Amino acid sequence: MIKVKGYAAESSTAELAPWEFERREPGPLDVQIDIQYCGVCHSDYHQAKNDWGNSIFPMVPGHEIVGRVVAVGADVTKFKVGDIAGIGCFVDSCRVCDNCKEDLEQYCENGNTQTYNGREQKTGIPTYGGYSNTIVATEDFVLSVDEKLDLKGVAPLLCAGITTYSPLRHWKVGKGHKLAVLGLGGLGHMAVKFGVAFGAEVTVLSTSPNKEADARKLGAHHFVVTTDKAQFKAARNSFDFILDTVSAPHDINAYMGLLRTNGTHICVGLPPTALEISAFRLVGGRKSLAGSNTGGIKETQEMLDFCAAHNIVSDIEMIDIKDINHAYERMLKGDVKYRFVIDIATL
Amino acid sequence: MIKVKGYAAESSTAELAPWEFERREPGPLDVQIDIQYCGVCHSDYHQAKNDWGNSIFPMVPGHEIVGRVVAVGADVTKFKVGDIAGIGCFVDSCRVCDNCKEDLEQYCENGNTQTYNGREQKTGIPTYGGYSNTIVATEDFVLSVDEKLDLKGVAPLLCAGITTYSPLRHWKVGKGHKLAVLGLGGLGHMAVKFGVAFGAEVTVLSTSPNKEADARKLGAHHFVVTTDKAQFKAARNSFDFILDTVSAPHDINAYMGLLRTNGTHICVGLPPTALEISAFRLVGGRKSLAGSNTGGIKETQEMLDFCAAHNIVSDIEMIDIKDINHAYERMLKGDVKYRFVIDIATL
Repeated sequence: MIKVKGYAAESSTAELAPWEFERREPGPLDVQIDIQYCGVCHSDYHQAKNDWGNSIFPMVPGHEIVGRVVAVGADVTKFKVGDIAGIGCFVDSCRVCDNCKEDLEQYCENGNTQTYNGREQKTGIPTYGGYSNTIVATEDFVLSVDEKLDLKGVAPLLCAGITTYSPLRHWKVGKGHKLAVLGLGGLGHMAVKFGVAFGAEVTVLSTSPNKEADARKLGAHHFVVTTDKAQFKAARNSFDFILDTVSAPHDINAYMGLLRTNGTHICVGLPPTALEISAFRLVGGRKSLAGSNTGGIKETQEMLDFCAAHNIVSDIEMIDIKDINHAYERMLKGDVKYRFVIDIATL
Repeated sequence: MIKVKGYAAESSTAELAPWEFERREPGPLDVQIDIQYCGVCHSDYHQAKNDWGNSIFPMVPGHEIVGRVVAVGADVTKFKVGDIAGIGCFVDSCRVCDNCKEDLEQYCENGNTQTYNGREQKTGIPTYGGYSNTIVATEDFVLSVDEKLDLKGVAPLLCAGITTYSPLRHWKVGKGHKLAVLGLGGLGHMAVKFGVAFGAEVTVLSTSPNKEADARKLGAHHFVVTTDKAQFKAARNSFDFILDTVSAPHDINAYMGLLRTNGTHICVGLPPTALEISAFRLVGGRKSLAGSNTGGIKETQEMLDFCAAHNIVSDIEMIDIKDINHAYERMLKGDVKYRFVIDIATL
């Protein structure tokens, strides 16, 4: 077994603190990565607090992982020692269901193995995430990262990036489309970058007027302060797509009114309470309310390659791992531009 | 002006009763149709009772109209006296908005002119529907009907037919798809006929076990009693599309669970209260909740031509116009197979 240093939550009421644990030695198809950077996702906090009721403790969060390959199993073909590699939200899946066979492991019908707070497919052993110095995973679920990118900014691509890239690709958002991005946080700022890169006309919808300058710096063409009634009304019937990154409860009916005929409102955030939507809002204008969850391994690799070709990374704020609990506090207040990334060298 | 006999509601509390009124003489682009049959739609009742708060009284309902052309204006090119013609949910639209230009008059951005309880585009004069012996409309909003079809069964195609045909075409439902039709009433029975004709594998979802024989007679391949927990559970993750014809409040979250990955739940019914949907249900499986409203004139003609080619009409129960109020009572109880049609000769 490999000795690993990390930060873990011992229970839902404990703060994250140093914890030592073990991982398996790389098997024939495994890759071992020494982690350099790990992004901090909202879901790390929710799971550490057992907000979704399925937490396994102790928990080492982290599913936005970038580092250098330090060992490969005998049968590994995709990686060699010294390569830069990434790991996202899951490290395995059943591989036999229809969705897995169609490269949609994010929707694995038998349940994929989450990078942390998951269980290995065969052994049921808990998985531990990227708030740690090294990780072992099967090569099929490890991504290749182009070393020319700023690796700190690559880490959040593995969740915030693919979660916004995938729906924009699935719904073929691009030239000739008007895309609204609702919420300018970790996911929202990536949605703006991808929307612009895909050729869409991008509007940021936000409650915070002071985000306008940043939105435009990220490439957004327009900005609507959603609490300004006149601005909101002027935006009616104008978008082909709304990519909704908001996880707090919000009024979907109102945003439906901003969609054009045949428009689609895509949720990638997960509000805890039910969305309320009038059937009249959907029927009038043949509108859709949809959802999307991260992306499959093949598409995640495609996204990383796209980012390398277009020099796209996440805007990040680097932290030492000892500051993770304070970073959570700031993240909950939206006080981060736009993703915290842990410098694992500080472990 | 043309003297017209019809049945009208004088107010939201009055029953329908005989009423005489006037329509304009046909202008250069108008067609006058002596009505033979008019279908009875749920919305006739809702509007007569002012359930949607926008009713104009006296009201002559009816937007499933079939009859014979008895006069044409000097510039009319599509119709000649003696032709069989139909009128559906609207008789005009602004004709200049993007949606009108794309043959989506049902979503006219400036508001189309409903066949009854509407107002003429230029004059604002109220429109009166098909519970009457004759009607005048501009030829662009009049449909050609093949005389070889059973005209009694054609009338409901103008609303119940197009309302189910249009979404099935828009979402390209056909061979290789598993389609569920939720609710077996006026709309549902047409959805089954079209779904089968388009090559889909069709399942009827109903609370009433005694509808199974009828569902299969209509061509459905499977039947699920939704109140039977074992049957409902066995249907999980199985449909590509659910066409939801139910206008009563119902649990959308539960039906979402019956959809496969990438599945779409399409509402054509209009429950009065908001639908409640969990974002987790949409995100898990990249599912969509959508709506669709009737169809444009071009598509309605396409549907009528498809029905003529495939000998599809609605299953109906003929009534005398004096029995309309009793028919409403039965319709509200779902006691009709599957659409009442008024024999206008009884007026």
